[in-house]
Amino acid sequence: MENPRSPSVRRAAKLAKKSERLATGRFLLEGPQAVREALMFRPDLVDEIYATPKALDKHPELGALANDHGRRIDAASEVVIAAMADTVTPQGVVAVARAFPTALAAVFAEQPRLIAILNEIRDPGNAGTIIRAADAAGADAVIFAGECIDPFHPKVVRSTTGSLFHIPVAIASDLSSLVDLARASGLRVLAADVRGDDLTDARDDGTLAQPAAWLFGNEARGLSEESRALADRSLKVPIYGAAESMNLATAASVCLYQSAFEQRR
Amino acid sequence: MENPRSPSVRRAAKLAKKSERLATGRFLLEGPQAVREALMFRPDLVDEIYATPKALDKHPELGALANDHGRRIDAASEVVIAAMADTVTPQGVVAVARAFPTALAAVFAEQPRLIAILNEIRDPGNAGTIIRAADAAGADAVIFAGECIDPFHPKVVRSTTGSLFHIPVAIASDLSSLVDLARASGLRVLAADVRGDDLTDARDDGTLAQPAAWLFGNEARGLSEESRALADRSLKVPIYGAAESMNLATAASVCLYQSAFEQRR
Repeated sequence: MENPRSPSVRRAAKLAKKSERLATGRFLLEGPQAVREALMFRPDLVDEIYATPKALDKHPELGALANDHGRRIDAASEVVIAAMADTVTPQGVVAVARAFPTALAAVFAEQPRLIAILNEIRDPGNAGTIIRAADAAGADAVIFAGECIDPFHPKVVRSTTGSLFHIPVAIASDLSSLVDLARASGLRVLAADVRGDDLTDARDDGTLAQPAAWLFGNEARGLSEESRALADRSLKVPIYGAAESMNLATAASVCLYQSAFEQRR
Repeated sequence: MENPRSPSVRRAAKLAKKSERLATGRFLLEGPQAVREALMFRPDLVDEIYATPKALDKHPELGALANDHGRRIDAASEVVIAAMADTVTPQGVVAVARAFPTALAAVFAEQPRLIAILNEIRDPGNAGTIIRAADAAGADAVIFAGECIDPFHPKVVRSTTGSLFHIPVAIASDLSSLVDLARASGLRVLAADVRGDDLTDARDDGTLAQPAAWLFGNEARGLSEESRALADRSLKVPIYGAAESMNLATAASVCLYQSAFEQRR
């Protein structure tokens, strides 16, 4: 494919917009890592793959994976790839995939022990980095609740570096009923909040060894009073130095790993 | 100040370049939070402050702090602030400050118990986020070793959200002699490395309770063989899910906090 104004190129490029993702149920994967992880973990979701001959030479596993799963890779020029992509350097590979939020019922049917709930998270880099950290920490799902960034936003997808395909990602419109659902499934609901108890106290009294749903709020304002009140307990990562606060994704990683460590003792 | 082409505006704008920062020993602070933290923690370093009347109305503490420390705030137009700043939205406030890497001898004279060493870190957001997390975890210093991003790069400064003024930041040209210095000061040198022992094993055998210098490598390649060989022990954040790796800043936060928690037990 050589023509950057062809209909399939235009369709792919439009997926940078949320309205287009909602209308089509599709989103864009950029770069060899994202496409490889999609082909390895969820090949059923991959509709179209485009790559430059140079990128296919450099990443022969892509051709092999596509072959294994009966997926075709269309050869495309650099110009075509660049016209489709949201990034400046998609490294010669993009794919169109079906967006696949997991149903909430399916998340809780699996008897989860560790879940991250993102409430009013706006920054795509934060959201993607938390999905990646939740995957690393062995969490069972990440749920976007209330007014959040779209988990299929191109920057979220990139920041997950493939974890979007490893861990169920669900969307809940109402936080309150989600919290009820989590509690009914035997999870303690823990709000990450600077006014909460010290995380190490919760470690020492056994709280962190229990199955938990962590609730993380907006990167600038934190959790609202109402959201915080829904939790069973508020916990803070203690600040031992002079920092006013932590970056959301780093704080969430410390919380999720602390639960993961205590659940495995 | 109204003229975006005046000499002081041009001088400030040039600080986006490393060569200019090195030549002048100055760097740029952008936004009310960075300027406030500088005025609170290191007013001696602040040379010039520029703000729009609107920003001063919104952040009256800036005027009070500047007053307390005998610092003048020059009124400037939005256009002037925008011309000086590296960010699109510096929120009406910028300042020029003296760059102030702490001498290595001064870092080790203070009998540090927890230090983060960044080796070949290239991404300014990662570097700034690690400085912020190290500050939060109560670390005694962050040291940039070998070919690293400049700690006074505008994006590093922004990502620290003020922590650059809370915690000593030093620069070491040679990692090997830095590691010797750390060891001579009674620190165990711990390499964060995916091939290392599990972090929870080091927790359980008491390693993490000891004074430590953590060594973090490049965001894409990790630590080189040579750098890793300098450490007393390599440790990894265990990956319980399917993620290939963690984001550098989140992994560093988990490591630094795990040391901080164990040192305080």
